[in-house]
Amino acid sequence: MRVLGVDPGLTRCGLGVVDGAGGRRVRCVAVDVVRTLADAPLPERLLAVGAEVERWIERHRPDVVAVERVFSQHNVRTVMGTAQVSGVVAMLAAKAGLPVAFHTPSEVKAAVTGEGRAGKQQVTTMVTRLLALEEAPRPADAADALALAICHCWRAPMLDRMAQAQARSAELARAHKARLEAARRAGEAS
Amino acid sequence: MRVLGVDPGLTRCGLGVVDGAGGRRVRCVAVDVVRTLADAPLPERLLAVGAEVERWIERHRPDVVAVERVFSQHNVRTVMGTAQVSGVVAMLAAKAGLPVAFHTPSEVKAAVTGEGRAGKQQVTTMVTRLLALEEAPRPADAADALALAICHCWRAPMLDRMAQAQARSAELARAHKARLEAARRAGEAS
Repeated sequence: MRVLGVDPGLTRCGLGVVDGAGGRRVRCVAVDVVRTLADAPLPERLLAVGAEVERWIERHRPDVVAVERVFSQHNVRTVMGTAQVSGVVAMLAAKAGLPVAFHTPSEVKAAVTGEGRAGKQQVTTMVTRLLALEEAPRPADAADALALAICHCWRAPMLDRMAQAQARSAELARAHKARLEAARRAGEAS
Repeated sequence: MRVLGVDPGLTRCGLGVVDGAGGRRVRCVAVDVVRTLADAPLPERLLAVGAEVERWIERHRPDVVAVERVFSQHNVRTVMGTAQVSGVVAMLAAKAGLPVAFHTPSEVKAAVTGEGRAGKQQVTTMVTRLLALEEAPRPADAADALALAICHCWRAPMLDRMAQAQARSAELARAHKARLEAARRAGEAS
């Protein structure tokens, strides 16, 4: 499974492509950061980031796009721009026919470091080690994008099992309801 | 000037096209609301709204897109989705080569009702009257999109004058700095 991880941002948007080779094995395919100028108009900045994401989807043909889930609680000043970028990325992935998975920052940190409140340096160190990179990806947004992609490689089988279990339990609930309904009708008819 | 007003939202996104005919005269060209299902995946919802905005740009050929400026302060539950839609809309407008203007809800309310804290009903009533519509646009998101477009028609000349004044004052500052620099060099040379 090939995952494009996106750490959304206007000033720096991290992009990382990782191949999951089964089990815990992961391989880095590409990593970079898209930058836009803070004094450029917002629509131009969103267009520049979106165009680069489209190029990465075209070039690297990921099976899925993993995006950091943005929360409105923290970083009120920058959160709107981050949310706008994440919306553009999710829309472009859907347009390319790709599934999109959202992971929270603590899910990502817990996946790669074992600790949901790990610092940026810890994440970078673990990403470098897990992907056997010769040097640490810089800046932190690049490492975060790779961490997101790794997180998705590892969580995907579990998320699939949960989705299947949910579908099964919804099916059971429907069958149960149908039996109750049939019993009610039989009671009315008798 | 033709303005496409967009009141961004995931469940309901208001779209309204207004022609500004000089002075305070405005004419309604089209108004509608795009709806997406709350239980559909977020990327699909963003894609559906984005596709409709692209169709409106193609069909109505606006000169500018006016979007409501989203704040992170209120409605924390829905604000992220709203921000994501506004990002998609701004990006698509830029992609179509159109300028994007953001207006705050109170700027819009003040423009059409004279009162920045006007209620939804007041906005709808004034929009209906200003555009001489036979019936009030429903739901409120449709009226809000038209109000945004009207607001832009009326504010655009003032915003243009402000931009020109800013450009002039930046030019004057540059000229002043150049004169000082020339005087300093002349002083050094003498």
